Amino acid sequence: MKGTVLYGPRDVRFEDWPEPQIEKPTDAIIRIAATCVCGSDLWPYRGIQKIAQPTPMGHEYCGIVEAIGSAVSTVKPGQFVIGSFCISDNTCPNCQAGYQSGCQNLEFMSRAQAPILRVPHADGTLVATPGMPPDDLLPSLLTISDVLGTGWFAADAANVKPGSTTVVVGDGAVGLLGVLSAKQMGAERIVAMSRHKQRQQFAEEFGATEIVTERGDKGVARIKELTGGIGADSVLECVGTEESMMQAIRSARPGGSIGYVGVPHGAALDVQNLFFALVRLHGGPAPVRRYLPNLIKLVWDRKINPGKVFDLVLPIEQVAEGYRAMDERRAIKALLRP
Amino acid sequence: MKGTVLYGPRDVRFEDWPEPQIEKPTDAIIRIAATCVCGSDLWPYRGIQKIAQPTPMGHEYCGIVEAIGSAVSTVKPGQFVIGSFCISDNTCPNCQAGYQSGCQNLEFMSRAQAPILRVPHADGTLVATPGMPPDDLLPSLLTISDVLGTGWFAADAANVKPGSTTVVVGDGAVGLLGVLSAKQMGAERIVAMSRHKQRQQFAEEFGATEIVTERGDKGVARIKELTGGIGADSVLECVGTEESMMQAIRSARPGGSIGYVGVPHGAALDVQNLFFALVRLHGGPAPVRRYLPNLIKLVWDRKINPGKVFDLVLPIEQVAEGYRAMDERRAIKALLRP
Repeated sequence: MKGTVLYGPRDVRFEDWPEPQIEKPTDAIIRIAATCVCGSDLWPYRGIQKIAQPTPMGHEYCGIVEAIGSAVSTVKPGQFVIGSFCISDNTCPNCQAGYQSGCQNLEFMSRAQAPILRVPHADGTLVATPGMPPDDLLPSLLTISDVLGTGWFAADAANVKPGSTTVVVGDGAVGLLGVLSAKQMGAERIVAMSRHKQRQQFAEEFGATEIVTERGDKGVARIKELTGGIGADSVLECVGTEESMMQAIRSARPGGSIGYVGVPHGAALDVQNLFFALVRLHGGPAPVRRYLPNLIKLVWDRKINPGKVFDLVLPIEQVAEGYRAMDERRAIKALLRP
Repeated sequence: MKGTVLYGPRDVRFEDWPEPQIEKPTDAIIRIAATCVCGSDLWPYRGIQKIAQPTPMGHEYCGIVEAIGSAVSTVKPGQFVIGSFCISDNTCPNCQAGYQSGCQNLEFMSRAQAPILRVPHADGTLVATPGMPPDDLLPSLLTISDVLGTGWFAADAANVKPGSTTVVVGDGAVGLLGVLSAKQMGAERIVAMSRHKQRQQFAEEFGATEIVTERGDKGVARIKELTGGIGADSVLECVGTEESMMQAIRSARPGGSIGYVGVPHGAALDVQNLFFALVRLHGGPAPVRRYLPNLIKLVWDRKINPGKVFDLVLPIEQVAEGYRAMDERRAIKALLRP
């Protein structure tokens, strides 16, 4: 069997590795129906996040259960399942509090850019769909595993409520699905910050009511202007740089909320700026497992179509081209089919 | 008339300045019944926060209205009033949202360490007590102006709820009244972090159920040990240093909340640490005006006795000794009587 391995900056290879087997009674083996390249994969791909050794890649996945360990009881062979990028037992106090991404037995999934995948803690990580999905639902179901789940968490952490004025910082796939999530949660106004024509269109299709192309001081001034000088109720930070964090913080009203899900790289916050902004900050790795049942239902009932973010579909053998296209911003997100 | 002026590090003088007059129709003049020295006054007193010129001091106050401007309608001469350290109009959208400390016409009070004080935006800043208070209530009423209001905001921002496990970082007057506030909000366990015998006793009188003397990594380990490895639901950060912020963040459970009210001085947060902690962060200058009616009622009905934090009472002429005693940690908080 082959899978995706990152060797160093811009060096992605699809190469032989041993086929996964059940190792623990709580494992499941799934045959991947679709996987994809994540925006966060680009940090090590670009060499910004160093890797010490060749690293198997991929953490977004859905597919059919092939085998289960003796202790697995909630999914069974033949079922179509979706799992979180965070592996969780779903029984510890943190999981029970809805923070499966802070599970006491947390592992981050890897090796999902491959045809077959071992999922530890299968009962705590996977949820089955109501039946075998038609092919056209695959992209949307796949998004739930991370990119939609993460955009959803951003909106949830930003306290988006019916009637809210919401700003989304970041026009990558997470930001675009943050727009979709805010729309689902009833936001009245959704301002997408983007200077990229195609992504602006996507944002509008997903529910953005306004587009702001300015950034930095000018971007903040524009948001203030749009909100009567006050700032937004909710701001979704979907990038992870210091600049984008400060843009988000300065765009919220006193008492407003920022949901931040961009994996931070080298960002440091001056607490004094945060202090006088009087905002609420919540974020981190999304507890996707908490949202899986609801998001599966929304996709299954065709209430939402998040799969539209995949503007490039490749056979998994061409995974390196998927990374290249996203790195060069030729594609928003690349879906890979084994 | 004389008032308190800071000239430079550890140089506080009580010296002549012009008696305040009504300057705008929205002003009130009050005769101060009691004022005090704030922990935040120690930052410039110690020279950590630079001052450009001799600076009038004091922002905590209560007393009797002497005169009002023509536009003032909610307080009148002869009434006893308490005001927030934040001057607010209480009508702008930020005030209406409960964030008077983010008022669009915000000013910070100064010049309150004096016998007579001008209060701008009197209608938006002051609240009258139900009648003339007996003398023994003065200390507790005075705390509402900032130190209690700030401790209360810390507990509120930290989402303290009935049954919560709460940790308080900082054993100054704000931290101690954070303990009192958490108790009032129904916290089941309140862990005070303090290595100072007298302050530990105060914390226990105000409702602390446990004391942790360790700091840093050991302090965090102790909190984890006390909470079954999970961390606290709510953490009140009442210091304002980078070390205390990280201690607070690391003491909360995933999904837990930190209310931070220590004025930050040079603190910077690594967003990656914050990200993986999965906590909620809210804080800033306390919107005391929002809490004034409720806190006045609690003090008036003798449900709480926050005035106990004043362990030193001085005639206002001896204000310099009040600063010295707090600087040297001989006193928790010094009350000044004109």
